[in-house]
Amino acid sequence: MPDMQLLDRLRHAVAAGFDEQTRFLAELVRFPSVRGEEAPLQDWMARQLAARGYSVDRYTLADIDLANLPGFSPVLDTDYTRAVQVVGARRATSPTGRSLIIQGHVDVVPTGPVELWSSPPFTAAVQGEWLQGRGAGDMKQGVSAMVFALDAIRTAGLEPAADIYVQTVTEEECTGNGALSTLARGYRADAVLIPEPTDGTITRAHVGVMWFRLLVRGVPVHVARAQSGTNAIMSAYQLILAVQRHTDTLNEAARQDPWFGAIPDPIKFNPGVLRGGDWASSTPSWCEVDCRIGLLPGTTLEEARLGVQRCVAEAARVDGFMANNPPEITWNGFQADGYVLEPGSEAERVLAACHHAVFGTEMEERRSTAVNDTRFYGLYHRMSALCYGPRGENHHGFDEGAHLPTLQQITLAIACFVAEWCGVREAR
Amino acid sequence: MPDMQLLDRLRHAVAAGFDEQTRFLAELVRFPSVRGEEAPLQDWMARQLAARGYSVDRYTLADIDLANLPGFSPVLDTDYTRAVQVVGARRATSPTGRSLIIQGHVDVVPTGPVELWSSPPFTAAVQGEWLQGRGAGDMKQGVSAMVFALDAIRTAGLEPAADIYVQTVTEEECTGNGALSTLARGYRADAVLIPEPTDGTITRAHVGVMWFRLLVRGVPVHVARAQSGTNAIMSAYQLILAVQRHTDTLNEAARQDPWFGAIPDPIKFNPGVLRGGDWASSTPSWCEVDCRIGLLPGTTLEEARLGVQRCVAEAARVDGFMANNPPEITWNGFQADGYVLEPGSEAERVLAACHHAVFGTEMEERRSTAVNDTRFYGLYHRMSALCYGPRGENHHGFDEGAHLPTLQQITLAIACFVAEWCGVREAR
Repeated sequence: MPDMQLLDRLRHAVAAGFDEQTRFLAELVRFPSVRGEEAPLQDWMARQLAARGYSVDRYTLADIDLANLPGFSPVLDTDYTRAVQVVGARRATSPTGRSLIIQGHVDVVPTGPVELWSSPPFTAAVQGEWLQGRGAGDMKQGVSAMVFALDAIRTAGLEPAADIYVQTVTEEECTGNGALSTLARGYRADAVLIPEPTDGTITRAHVGVMWFRLLVRGVPVHVARAQSGTNAIMSAYQLILAVQRHTDTLNEAARQDPWFGAIPDPIKFNPGVLRGGDWASSTPSWCEVDCRIGLLPGTTLEEARLGVQRCVAEAARVDGFMANNPPEITWNGFQADGYVLEPGSEAERVLAACHHAVFGTEMEERRSTAVNDTRFYGLYHRMSALCYGPRGENHHGFDEGAHLPTLQQITLAIACFVAEWCGVREAR
Repeated sequence: MPDMQLLDRLRHAVAAGFDEQTRFLAELVRFPSVRGEEAPLQDWMARQLAARGYSVDRYTLADIDLANLPGFSPVLDTDYTRAVQVVGARRATSPTGRSLIIQGHVDVVPTGPVELWSSPPFTAAVQGEWLQGRGAGDMKQGVSAMVFALDAIRTAGLEPAADIYVQTVTEEECTGNGALSTLARGYRADAVLIPEPTDGTITRAHVGVMWFRLLVRGVPVHVARAQSGTNAIMSAYQLILAVQRHTDTLNEAARQDPWFGAIPDPIKFNPGVLRGGDWASSTPSWCEVDCRIGLLPGTTLEEARLGVQRCVAEAARVDGFMANNPPEITWNGFQADGYVLEPGSEAERVLAACHHAVFGTEMEERRSTAVNDTRFYGLYHRMSALCYGPRGENHHGFDEGAHLPTLQQITLAIACFVAEWCGVREAR
């Protein structure tokens, strides 16, 4: 049970700072920080943290040797000299409490057709209680909560009694290599909090995710058969259908899973990007499909890859085009294990108490059919890694939004957690 | 029956020039004159014709008001200020014979993946009797035949007795607006010859062709249904399958066609380019497919469009994604009528006689399931428009090639045709 007087001080401090926090969030949303374009935002963030008195470590993914670390995902088509990572450290002079990493990602997924947004996606439009924009929900609002929860502690006249690292990373939406790099650089703590938009729930388990590219290309058997479907684009479609059937089989088996058995179809397969052919009047000789498929915690990446490879090979054998031109699979992007936050950790107990103190309700748990960065800390480094944050909507969709009233409450819950976990002292 | 002594003079002249013609063809093939990039080739061609004494008219499609002319095809995504057209005129001082337009296109279709070529596609590699490269067959060899047939007449000490226009145009592979522009500019003649790679046959009839873009986009119903196919890419596939079925129905009816009844499945539908989605982990919210479909001579474009529109609308109604997000069809590119060269024209008789004199066999006729530029002259301006030319292979495919021995014979047949149609005099 948190100290209620302390909580009141923090509540006032969060409330006093919330207008500024909302402006900070709007500023964050205005950076079009899609993959590969996060550097200007990260530069701004480094200056923000430095101005607040953090010791800032700014580096790029090109500075770090990642390829042999557990959890690394291979990457094509990107420039890691521009993948800037930021770690702000607030070191306690005489640390007495428990240390904490509080981390958020600043990369966002593409907007899709901007005409389908009510307001342009990087303008941070406010609609009632919602602040909208690509990344507003996932997870720039969480980043604002990290920064302003710690600001609130200072505003309340307090300072943490243990080391705190505020980290803003990239690559969460495609590999997780940003989070991985902070571990490679040596950052460790007694707990990790990642305020993804969980709407005040704790993420008990998340699936793993793999990305792969199907590449079909070759010489059409005969142009006269073009209209019967013997071309690279139509053959790629056969592969998609085959992986859909494979996914159905996996979801059948998933009904027995201890963590995901109650979730209908927890394994999502998504053919997300398709490109093929060059000319309306030429039979397409190539097609590539960027795909995403989930896997349950406990399934190895190797097993999951093998399943996809087998079903693709079988579909290729019976297709007129691919029998002569076998497709290739490239594992490019996420090769991410699933992760279960084992119940019973002290960090979770402290967070649950803060949540209850702020919201007056129990902190519920969720199973996520998407991946997040906690796996790196929890799975490969045995830290308690908590994924808990504000309410968002339409993540990866149109009119993505952050729910501002919830954001204020979650910011308070996080401030409370920092105070209880790290301990606080009256600032001198 | 051509004058055999004249034919011998021309045969020697063509043979004497054939090494140079082969170099000329190789030079042509080395221009990467894909759509929108033809201007440097056309500049070179204008200088080649000027050096030979032609009066050159060079202009761009941006100079001509085309949109209201019969046969015009609408265009997106291109810059007509760079679409250079070239007409070289050789005017007879005192014309006595019949005038002639001899036309070839210099635009080529995209190469597809260059790794799938035996030699890079713009290097004009020679493999035995074949000169290879994108456009070598279709139809840069025909362009070389035009120029060198006329050169041969001069080499033989002769000059045409009527006006001749040598035209190199663009846009044949996507709209035909290059050919259309020469008519808008006023060029007319008593006959037209287009030496497409017909392997020494005359094209009796060609189908029409329409291009259209299917655009599917919108908001997925629910992300949880992503793997069951409710997304823009999978819905676009439903449209493709629907147009394939529609095409099957059209081909059933085509068995009764007077010109194409004997050709199996003369109407080809090709989904040639597909693009959709932005991110492997986001449900695709948009997909576009660039398609090509044929139509028989006598079917109006309006009828053909209506058939496609109906089948797309029906497929959309029963699809989970498109029922809420109706697809759009854009008619972009070819809106080309079919054309029949009615048998019995004097121009065809003269050409057939020359073909027989050169090859010793009858000139056979073909029905083409692809379109060519003759329709503009024949359909809208009642000129005899002959499509007759050399032998090529793998047009629009890999390792496209021109068969050099046939090219030499066809060049002679064309020289013979020019001499017989226009008449020749001893040069002064």
